[in-house]
Amino acid sequence: MATLKVPVHVPSPSEDAEQLRKAFEDLICQCWGTNEQLIIDILAHRNAAQRNSIRKVYGEAYGEDLLKCLEKELTSDFERAVLLFTLDPAERDAHLANEATKKFTSSNWILMEIACSRSSHELLNVKKAYHARYKKSLEEDVAYHTTGEYRKLLVPLVSAFRYEGEEVNMTLAKSEAKILHDKISDKHYTDEEVIRIVSTRSKAQLNATLNHYNTSFGNAINKDLKADPSDEFLKLLRAVIKCLTTPEQYFEKVLRQAINKLGSDEWALTRVVTTRAEVDMVRIKEAYQRRNSVPLEQAIAKDTSGDYEKFLLALIGAGDA
Amino acid sequence: MATLKVPVHVPSPSEDAEQLRKAFEDLICQCWGTNEQLIIDILAHRNAAQRNSIRKVYGEAYGEDLLKCLEKELTSDFERAVLLFTLDPAERDAHLANEATKKFTSSNWILMEIACSRSSHELLNVKKAYHARYKKSLEEDVAYHTTGEYRKLLVPLVSAFRYEGEEVNMTLAKSEAKILHDKISDKHYTDEEVIRIVSTRSKAQLNATLNHYNTSFGNAINKDLKADPSDEFLKLLRAVIKCLTTPEQYFEKVLRQAINKLGSDEWALTRVVTTRAEVDMVRIKEAYQRRNSVPLEQAIAKDTSGDYEKFLLALIGAGDA
Repeated sequence: MATLKVPVHVPSPSEDAEQLRKAFEDLICQCWGTNEQLIIDILAHRNAAQRNSIRKVYGEAYGEDLLKCLEKELTSDFERAVLLFTLDPAERDAHLANEATKKFTSSNWILMEIACSRSSHELLNVKKAYHARYKKSLEEDVAYHTTGEYRKLLVPLVSAFRYEGEEVNMTLAKSEAKILHDKISDKHYTDEEVIRIVSTRSKAQLNATLNHYNTSFGNAINKDLKADPSDEFLKLLRAVIKCLTTPEQYFEKVLRQAINKLGSDEWALTRVVTTRAEVDMVRIKEAYQRRNSVPLEQAIAKDTSGDYEKFLLALIGAGDA
Repeated sequence: MATLKVPVHVPSPSEDAEQLRKAFEDLICQCWGTNEQLIIDILAHRNAAQRNSIRKVYGEAYGEDLLKCLEKELTSDFERAVLLFTLDPAERDAHLANEATKKFTSSNWILMEIACSRSSHELLNVKKAYHARYKKSLEEDVAYHTTGEYRKLLVPLVSAFRYEGEEVNMTLAKSEAKILHDKISDKHYTDEEVIRIVSTRSKAQLNATLNHYNTSFGNAINKDLKADPSDEFLKLLRAVIKCLTTPEQYFEKVLRQAINKLGSDEWALTRVVTTRAEVDMVRIKEAYQRRNSVPLEQAIAKDTSGDYEKFLLALIGAGDA
């Protein structure tokens, strides 16, 4: 359930493109100061297909790429948020994943997040966008830029094309719950059977397996994966499980940590809001309110300011009941 | 370059469907014996799109699946060849791969062949057909049914969605040629770097790497991978390299071994002819003639008989210059 609010009567893409052009021209001549509000009013209230049309029409009308213009006119966190959101979801994920392959370990989380929280079809579109944009495959970059246990886990995760149906094999769920429990009891967290199960099974099948795990062995798997709370690989593995089975809880936690950080982590905040506003932000907001006893709007408003704040709040549908 | 010959004036799918129905009815009432020739005349001379249309129209007109009728009417190697060829290429590969996951080691070759000789787009369609038909993913079945070094190699191969463009990074080709040479010199054939390179790089990039390997280290990689000629994993790894870089030579060898076998290996023969007739059989025939000094038509005619022979010869365009 998306929080994105598209007006009942949407202007045509060329009207939107014209308005955006005006917003930029105002910025350039500084006739009446900036017109970021107009940019927010348009881009934060158009869905992916509409934004794509606006980009197309804008390019045709003015011979310039809308994204390049936004990049030139805007700055800082507001710029990053507008740029990321304006991108097509698959292109945006390809961009985030490519950034992640160029950085160090913390970015393993972003690769995992993209691999595990998107549907098979969405992830496939990310891979296609990656080919088109970077002339390479996502998998080869992930494999090249990771090592050891992280490579062992992340490459299969980003390579996956999971079955998406609801069919579940209960015999298999039972036998694989036992495999997982045996390996985890022996602290063989990077065992290839563990990786195989979490990286290839459909979300429905994995869910059945983990329910069986919980019922048969007395603990949720993520409790057993907390044996050593400071182990970074175990943290990532718990996040994989969360992302695959209860993504809204995973994203709630990312938001909570981003907001509670000293100075807050704008990159994480921007990433989650721009990637989930059109997907499941309603559920994420519910999870946030439940866990923090504060509405997400209020937490974001407290932690951010200016146009960046306005843009994020527009995306999460601030003002809704 | 395909060997499949489609007539200049192709009857409509409903005319073809009607003719096939008549061929079956002749078979049922045995009015004048079987009419396999009619089946060959139609199905061995229609491309994939045309065969799909015929299946669709046949199902609508007679309320029965054409494939089920063929299965009921035909027998033995001829049956298998007609059924496999009539299937849509992606469905056919999904079927072959599914069969392979249920058998023992020799079928690892079939999985490798499908993973390495198809384009990224074709392999993706195989995965989609696998989801649709088996309600599971190809990767999960391959991962589940393989172990050890074979799993380590085959799962990434079938999971791959390689970049298909021609762009090549020569610095990378150089450095990865060295990695391959170092690992192979140390006999670390299952090293994760070796697997990473062969399973994620584009065919163009891999080709550049292997050319560099050859130039810098004096041997083609497959010569260095022959250190222990009886090692089954090394055999498979050489086949991976061949399939990725010179598929026509790979298929020539499969055909040669299938035909030279005592009693010949009809499953391999049928597989190669039905899967390559619409793709690169012209090149495979050239490679066969070069290597064996006998045209492939002649070798197949000598080794097979009856309708099976006729069907295979029709598919490889027998009678062409």
